Formats: sequence, structure tokens, C-alpha cells
Amino acid sequence: MSDRFSFALSATDGRARRGTIATPRGTIATPAFMPVGTAATVKAMLPESVAATGAEILLGNTYHLMLRPGAERIARLGGLHRFMNWDRPILTDSGGFQVMSLAGLRKLSEKGVAFKSHIDGSRHELTPERSMEIQRLLGSDIVMCFDECPALPAPEADVAQSMRLSMRWAERSRAAFGDRPGHALFGIQQGGVSRELRAESAEKLTEIGFDGYAVGGLAVGEGQEAMLGVLDYAPDMLPGDRPRYLMGVGKPDDIVGAVARGIDMMDCVLPSRSGRTGQAFTRRGQVNIKNARHQDDPRPLDETCTCPACAGYSRAYLHHVFRAGEIISSMLLTWHNLHYYQDLMGEMRAAIATGTFAAWERDFHDARAQGDIEPL
Amino acid sequence: MSDRFSFALSATDGRARRGTIATPRGTIATPAFMPVGTAATVKAMLPESVAATGAEILLGNTYHLMLRPGAERIARLGGLHRFMNWDRPILTDSGGFQVMSLAGLRKLSEKGVAFKSHIDGSRHELTPERSMEIQRLLGSDIVMCFDECPALPAPEADVAQSMRLSMRWAERSRAAFGDRPGHALFGIQQGGVSRELRAESAEKLTEIGFDGYAVGGLAVGEGQEAMLGVLDYAPDMLPGDRPRYLMGVGKPDDIVGAVARGIDMMDCVLPSRSGRTGQAFTRRGQVNIKNARHQDDPRPLDETCTCPACAGYSRAYLHHVFRAGEIISSMLLTWHNLHYYQDLMGEMRAAIATGTFAAWERDFHDARAQGDIEPL
Repeated sequence: MSDRFSFALSATDGRARRGTIATPRGTIATPAFMPVGTAATVKAMLPESVAATGAEILLGNTYHLMLRPGAERIARLGGLHRFMNWDRPILTDSGGFQVMSLAGLRKLSEKGVAFKSHIDGSRHELTPERSMEIQRLLGSDIVMCFDECPALPAPEADVAQSMRLSMRWAERSRAAFGDRPGHALFGIQQGGVSRELRAESAEKLTEIGFDGYAVGGLAVGEGQEAMLGVLDYAPDMLPGDRPRYLMGVGKPDDIVGAVARGIDMMDCVLPSRSGRTGQAFTRRGQVNIKNARHQDDPRPLDETCTCPACAGYSRAYLHHVFRAGEIISSMLLTWHNLHYYQDLMGEMRAAIATGTFAAWERDFHDARAQGDIEPL
Repeated sequence: MSDRFSFALSATDGRARRGTIATPRGTIATPAFMPVGTAATVKAMLPESVAATGAEILLGNTYHLMLRPGAERIARLGGLHRFMNWDRPILTDSGGFQVMSLAGLRKLSEKGVAFKSHIDGSRHELTPERSMEIQRLLGSDIVMCFDECPALPAPEADVAQSMRLSMRWAERSRAAFGDRPGHALFGIQQGGVSRELRAESAEKLTEIGFDGYAVGGLAVGEGQEAMLGVLDYAPDMLPGDRPRYLMGVGKPDDIVGAVARGIDMMDCVLPSRSGRTGQAFTRRGQVNIKNARHQDDPRPLDETCTCPACAGYSRAYLHHVFRAGEIISSMLLTWHNLHYYQDLMGEMRAAIATGTFAAWERDFHDARAQGDIEPL
């Protein structure tokens, strides 16, 4: 274990990168997918089960945790790691993205954002300084700058104005974060789908200097094509010797496309949320377990998958417990989806290390093109 | 492993009995508590976690499984054990208790009960013969006779009439069950709170002959005092060389009282249902985790408990995830409650084996009299 935060690349294949992040709480093989533990739990999973899927880092949400149970309370209880029984690295977002989504409940100023809690209507404020304080109270290993993130599509002038505010907030975040050995602060590139604005943002962030850099403001309504279009150039604008994190992405093919374009870290609620709504991800695409065609099917979701849901249960069982509203349905499908995502990351890391990423990527798309197994 | 069903007593202490049930799917140390897996799942638990609590046998509900996903479907899929990924013994109830609860949706006759599904209103019939068939299709290891169970209090004439119908159904159940080596059929004593009717029922059942005998028709509104009053005499009316099963009981002190009166097996939804509503059972009584006094408490539910909820989490965390409506709240509290119930059974088995049950029982009541730990 390292006593400092560091990042080292061990291989590249095309633009895809294989690396390792070291932190005092453990190392993270990249490209890495981070399950989301919004309210101090990855929904429907015990933390040891999350670790069993191969996840080496979780994401926690500043907005949710500051409102309930409260950052000061978590600090008094020994920090977020102890609170949620997860001793490996945690990345926390800044709260910026979530408060921006509170249309009608928030007020934006140069200073920050004043908003009302969606839980009880109580008044709160998030500023770069308060966001850094909350993330410190939580004990986050990787802290994100407080930023503003407009929904797309938006007029370029609005995107530019918002990006420049985020860059001023990035400077304030950097100053407020201070020097915390073993903890990292990541800057967030903004600029929507504009190459010029992305370049301006990257230049400003690099000038301030961060331990890692996120590509922010994507997966907010622009569509996969536009997103991958931005990823064709945006990651390369950021320092190559630091991890690059694509926030809030995504479906399996989004993730593969992002890794192919030089992204090292990702997070998304999709595998866990889909698990709770009966959607399973497999190498042959998406399976809706609610569909009646599964009700007599003795086969597992995916015969090649080693997760507990596939090792122990038929599609018929998974269909039954979903229809019956049983909690085990969320538990098994979430576990399967997180396991599948981690398998995907492991396969990509191996392919990059051996210089076979392009061939792997073709196989990935071929398997999906076949579609789910034939009904019985 | 035995290829037949058998029961052997290894110790008695007062009226309390220490024994072992052997079945082809494994042995069961008695007194035993059986978690309830109504719809082919112990709610909020994976089956390996249920086994980790120490449970050696589960209960499945004929009524629920016949309606969804259907007994014939489960049989086609290899039986209930494979379906729900539990390879140890399963006891199934007969469906009688549940259909009797369908006030207004059922019609009782000498033949059996016609009723409408609470799920979709479809029409079904349960008779002793159909109940035996369903339990065979499920692959149940311990099959229960189809019986009628009136709610108490009820006029003695009604209880007598109902008991005699149940005895005629017990004969038909015995005939329909046939000879199935390795599988057991249990008769169910009825007769409410009447000693004479309990004696008549026990005599009739013994005459028919069963592999085990249940004390039925209790925990249906009569109160703990009346229940324990019946248990003062009812178990001893049943053959001493066969297991005695008290159906649907109960709270920890009900269970201790039943074991003290010679009961060998019990089942109840209470530990799992309470787990989902934020109620935890500990040796010091019941804890309502929803209560605000837990919100800053770094201590576990019970410092002497080794379950995952107590080993890894504070009361503050359990309070937080319950209030936030997170699934992990049901997962952890159900696990804790089932673990506590199995610990209780293990302690009682050890006390009976060493002839110290009376002292153990005093300690049990003393610890509860102390109440939950002091607030911080």
C-alpha cells in the first residue's frame, strides 16, 4: 500500500490505457468501474458482496449524504468507510450535479448554490468550500471539484458561461482542499459538445493542477453518438500521466467506447438500478426478466457467468421472484449486473495489456449482435 | 445421511427435549426453529446466508407456491429445493391455514376448500388429496396434513366440529400420501383451548399414525397465557418418540416457553417480517431501530452477537438505512433476527443436553428484564 495517491500506466493499446491507481486504502486497476453507493449503500448489496464482484472503489454522493444522515454525523461516527463497512477507496462527487437537477428548488450565484432538501424542504448551501469540507468530513479518498453542469442540448453561450464559472469554482476547490497526503482532488472538464470550450476548460484545469481529471457534463441528454464524439478529442486534452474519469457513464457499450478513447475510470447507477427493475446485462445484451418467456426456463441468465445469480438460479426463478416483488430479485440481479460490469472491465484490462483490444472490441460487439439466447 | 426419515431423542431436561431428525437431505438438531420461505425465498436473504445463521430446515407455503409460480411448474423445474437453491430439508404447510384466512373468498365443504386467489382472483380448490399432490410436486421433505384451523376465541361446538373435520381430512391425507421413504407426513392436533378436544384429536391422530405431530390451531388470537396453558398438556398427549411441532410460533419468549413444554420444532415469520419493519430481537428484548435515539449511536445492536449486522455496523448506520428506505436495512436486520433465533435454539439445545435448562431459562428472562442498553 502506498501512503500517497499515485497513478501509473503499464500499457496502452491504441488510445486505450491500462494503469494502476495507488492509495493508502488500496490499489485500483484501471480502466475501473465504480459502483454507486448513493446513501452509504450500494442498493441491495452487502459491501463484501460488492467487493466479491471485483470492485475496488465505490462512489458516494455528497448531496445525499449531507442531507441524510449528515456529513458531521458521519465524521463523528468515524467517517464514511467505517459507517458503511467498506475499507477500500471511496470517491465522492461534489454534490454539484445533484443540486443542479433540483429545478425550482435551487438558486445559483457566483458564491455557490442555495437549495432546498428534496427530503424535508430544509434550506442548505453548497459552495466549493463547503463541498470540500463535506468530502473531508466523509473521509473521501478521491474528492471532486464543485462544478456546475448544464443539461444538454444548451446554447453554446450558456455552456461557456457555465464552464467558466466551474473553472473559477475549480480554483476555489483547489485552494479549499489544501494539502492532504493520501487524498486526491480531481478537476472536472466542462464545455458541453464544443471542442473549443473543452480545450479552454482543460487548459485552465491543467494550469491549476489536479491529481486526476474528469470529463464532466456528458451523459446528460446528448446521446451516445455526441458523447463518443466528444470523447474522440476531450480526454487527450487532459494530462496523460493522470487518471481520466468519465462521470455517470454508462451502458456497457458506452463504457467500451469510453475505454477505447482513453478513459480510465467510470461510474454509473445503471447496473444497480436496472437490477431492481428486472433488467439484466449480459455479454449478449440486455434481458428483461419480467418477460413471460422466462417463466419455465431452467437456464441461467448467462451460462458463462460465475456470479451467484447465474450459478444458483434459473431464469424461471428470477422471473418468479421479480413478479412476486421479492427482495431477493433485486439482490440477485444487482449482483449479476455489477459482476458483469466488473468482468467487462477485467476483460478490457487484459486485452489492453496484451495489445489485443481491437479484436476484443469486435468480439464484444459480435456477441451482442447475436442477441439473447433463443427461447425454449 | 439417512435414507429414511427418523427421530431420536438424546436428552431430556424436565419436559424439554433434545433430539435429532434425520432425513436424506440432512439432519436437524432439535429443538429447531424453521425460517419461513413463503414464496420460495426467505425474504431479504440469500439461502446461503440463511444456512449461515444455523438454520437446518426451511418452511415453504403450499398456498403461495401453488398460486405463483405453480406446483406443476416447480416440479418441471426440478422441485422446490433446486428452484430456490436450498438443498437441505424443507417442510411445507398444507395450505389449510392460509385458505382459512381468506374470509369471503373461500367456501368450505366436507370435500375441501374452494377459494379465489388473492393475486388474480382465479378459482382454485384445496382438498387433502390435492394438498398431498402439491407437496409431492414441490418435493417437500416433511409434508403436513390438510387441516382446518378456526380463529380463536370460538364457541367450543365450532372448535369440535372443525377438529373432527380435520381428523377426517387427516385420514384422507394419510391415504393420499401413501408410502414415500425418506419423506415424512405429520398429523396436526386441533381442539383449540379445550383439553378434551385436544385429547380426542391426539387419540385419533395416533390411531392413524404419523411420522411426527404438530400442535396446530394456536397463535391464532388466544394470547400467550392461553397458548402456554394448552402446551402444559397438549404435547404430552402426542407420541413421545416422534417430533412435536408447534406451528406459527412465535416471539422469543413464546419459543422458550414452548421448548420448556416439550416442543421440538417451530416456525414463524416474525424474525424476518420484523427485520423489514425495523424491529430487532436481542437477548435484552426488542429494539426499534427507527427510534431517533439510535441516530448517533456507534454501538452495535448487541455487542455479544456475531451476525454480520452486529459485526460490521453501528446502530447509527442501521437507523440511517432504515430511515432512507434502503434494502440493506431489511437484509441486515433479517439476518440479525434469524441469527438471534438460531443462537437461542442452540443455547437451549446445549442447556437441555447438560441438564441446565431451568437455570438457562432464568438467565434468559433476567437479561430481558434489564431491557435494551442505555441510550448514549
